[in-house]
Amino acid sequence: MATKKLASWALALQFSNLTQPVTDMAVKSIYNWAGCAIGGYALPPAGIALEALSPLLPQHSGNCSILGSDALVDVQTAALVNGIASHVDDYDDTHADTPVHPSGPVASALLAMAELRSPVSGPDFITAFVAGVEAECKLGVAVYPEHYDIGWHITSTTGSIGAAVAVGKLLGLDLEQLQHAIGIASVQVIGMRDSFGTDTKPFHVGRAAQSGIQAAVLAQNGYGSMLEGLEGEYGWAHVVSTRQNVTKELSTLGSIWEITKNTFKPFPCDRIIHAAIDGWIQIHDQAVKKGLRIADIKNATARVNPIVLSLTDNHDPKTGLDAKFSVYHAGAVALIYGEATPAQFTDEVVKDSAVISLRDKVSVTAAKEVSEHEAFVAVEFANGTKLEIHVEHALGSVEKPLSAEQLKEKFLEQVSAQIGDKQAAAAFSAFSQIANMTDVGKIARKFKQHPRLYKELNSSP
Amino acid sequence: MATKKLASWALALQFSNLTQPVTDMAVKSIYNWAGCAIGGYALPPAGIALEALSPLLPQHSGNCSILGSDALVDVQTAALVNGIASHVDDYDDTHADTPVHPSGPVASALLAMAELRSPVSGPDFITAFVAGVEAECKLGVAVYPEHYDIGWHITSTTGSIGAAVAVGKLLGLDLEQLQHAIGIASVQVIGMRDSFGTDTKPFHVGRAAQSGIQAAVLAQNGYGSMLEGLEGEYGWAHVVSTRQNVTKELSTLGSIWEITKNTFKPFPCDRIIHAAIDGWIQIHDQAVKKGLRIADIKNATARVNPIVLSLTDNHDPKTGLDAKFSVYHAGAVALIYGEATPAQFTDEVVKDSAVISLRDKVSVTAAKEVSEHEAFVAVEFANGTKLEIHVEHALGSVEKPLSAEQLKEKFLEQVSAQIGDKQAAAAFSAFSQIANMTDVGKIARKFKQHPRLYKELNSSP
Repeated sequence: MATKKLASWALALQFSNLTQPVTDMAVKSIYNWAGCAIGGYALPPAGIALEALSPLLPQHSGNCSILGSDALVDVQTAALVNGIASHVDDYDDTHADTPVHPSGPVASALLAMAELRSPVSGPDFITAFVAGVEAECKLGVAVYPEHYDIGWHITSTTGSIGAAVAVGKLLGLDLEQLQHAIGIASVQVIGMRDSFGTDTKPFHVGRAAQSGIQAAVLAQNGYGSMLEGLEGEYGWAHVVSTRQNVTKELSTLGSIWEITKNTFKPFPCDRIIHAAIDGWIQIHDQAVKKGLRIADIKNATARVNPIVLSLTDNHDPKTGLDAKFSVYHAGAVALIYGEATPAQFTDEVVKDSAVISLRDKVSVTAAKEVSEHEAFVAVEFANGTKLEIHVEHALGSVEKPLSAEQLKEKFLEQVSAQIGDKQAAAAFSAFSQIANMTDVGKIARKFKQHPRLYKELNSSP
Repeated sequence: MATKKLASWALALQFSNLTQPVTDMAVKSIYNWAGCAIGGYALPPAGIALEALSPLLPQHSGNCSILGSDALVDVQTAALVNGIASHVDDYDDTHADTPVHPSGPVASALLAMAELRSPVSGPDFITAFVAGVEAECKLGVAVYPEHYDIGWHITSTTGSIGAAVAVGKLLGLDLEQLQHAIGIASVQVIGMRDSFGTDTKPFHVGRAAQSGIQAAVLAQNGYGSMLEGLEGEYGWAHVVSTRQNVTKELSTLGSIWEITKNTFKPFPCDRIIHAAIDGWIQIHDQAVKKGLRIADIKNATARVNPIVLSLTDNHDPKTGLDAKFSVYHAGAVALIYGEATPAQFTDEVVKDSAVISLRDKVSVTAAKEVSEHEAFVAVEFANGTKLEIHVEHALGSVEKPLSAEQLKEKFLEQVSAQIGDKQAAAAFSAFSQIANMTDVGKIARKFKQHPRLYKELNSSP
């Protein structure tokens, strides 16, 4: 009954059922997603995808915005490209109990659909968003960590189902239709860990959004599937994981809100290295105060959870995307720049000789007793000075979340780089006030987006 | 090196490398696919998909044909809908060493792309088709049966990669681009066995075709992926199966041609019940000769391989699609009608009281020593007469293939029902002569397709 339970719960959900912490977190999640999407459009993958797929359509125009550009395209292309852009910087959000980045697949699908099926009110948009996020995260908990350990990218493998639930709710599917939509989405299992560090990682998110839209629209029009796509003997949960308790997890829908456990990344890279970065930035700041020169660093170390090396043991990253999965690159830029923003994860910085030199002095050891959000970092200088920091909870974790002010700063920094300060402020105002809108589909008209394509932003496309 | 090996082999493949048995089988595979697609358009799923997705595009027209209708759409929609139609009847082809139905994903992607990128010559089309089919089937062998036993629909899970290889070759990708295309396709694992008997089974095939096109076009435009998508630690082969030997299987590319092991279905249903159907039809014919009445059947039995009950132990099918996975329905219609064509797998026949009554008299036992293409069937009549048949190799198996004449008949029967006898003959002429065409993209203009939508063909959409 898991599929039916999810579908019936999602359809019954009303904006008035949402508690204040739920709606607050939903709004933050949505504007954090929008900031990532607008900022992420500056990187190659989103623009390449848009330019590649546009000629496949007979006449390429539509109602749906590509955030960060002024392109208007069809709903499926918009969902794909915004999904790619929102995840390319690895700067989005993370569910605390799993590595699911929940907003990307759901918001990318929903915004495009809200533009096509205007008017969709803010409360309806938020309610559908919450339904989709709960679906993704409950499914994530039901199969984590076994599913992730096999090699699946859990964000997109749960994301196509979350997007189908959200869009299905927005379109007003009936119960059986939504079960069919979940079934159609569930047979499209998108995303593997091997592609981390490449353009294909953010593709997972965009494709999950696209698949969710397609599944919901097909089901709305009478396309059939199995009614028990999640729990069937040869259905989603059994096929994608060696362990699952989908039925149990979905029984907590509406009583335990997964979205309240959403967290936001302070650094645009794999969240597993955030604790170490946090510590190394603190050491940078101490060194500056003490008049120590970064060039005089003899060695830098971190003691971290073993998963850090499993995911980011990359001594020689080749590109900015690759460097998002290199704990050594992260250490070098945190110590040199005293920050880790998108500017520290460009192809140029990856090739910078000072960064490469310091990267080679970073060493990392793993210890099971260190938690995933914890790090012990130390730096030794040529004069023998040793600075040490214990980060118990990484900045951005549930225990030490970004404040609303920090989230706003993060948004403005990303978005200003793409569309300028004034328009960034207008965009923040629009997305952070989404609950009050009567027509979310018009949100992109509240600010002007420059028609800069990725080719203008990147010398080598 | 598996991904690189596949990509470099596919790019180097020339029409002149293909032996006569390979090209002969390729042409048969293509026209058998086209017949299934044109005939299959009469069933609801293809038409529903077309009607559902058309309004998502700003201006719905294009260069690419929906076979069986006169609709022209964009390349991705055409690949999806033709893929659905070609598999909906479960009447297509099957690789003898795996349950892969190879033509659907590859031909559906290629024909749409050949129409968009006209002119593509017959030899180029066939060469790309063979490259895609070899990719699918080698990958299938490398993970079968473990991958299938988990619950994956091996046709589409290998199909998106096969389609990417075929389209990538057609578009002239370079080696790294084709490796990237394989990577992008490999992270989209489409199709689970739980959806057998529903509209979502043929959706798998269409979506695989669509994903292959998208992957190839993205890679052509510079979208990146991992270069070792198939063999990487967290890549396709390891993630989707508990056993794999992709590297070994791909080492036989060009020396062992999988396409020569392709077989064609004589009956539009799961191939695992073809041996039993073959036997029951023979009993029907004997009974007619002996003057025995089908209404006097006391019981009908079959002793078959255990996989038959694993896939088709469905005593009470509800729809025509569902009945394609019911050995009991198959027995009833084979005995009553003396044939098993699409006309025996309609929703109406499933609800026919004589069929239901005889279905309840069919019983099946499983025995490991009976091969997958073998069956011992028997029927007992009210007067005590017992007729027995041992089918050692089912009609349509490698050992007892359909003749060229039977394949032509199968094509004409399916296609005439949709576009009439005269146009069916023209369509057969076009597809069976595809090797001589200078522009395969114009093949659909060689015959006139009626603009009948599924709603006109089906009373209840």
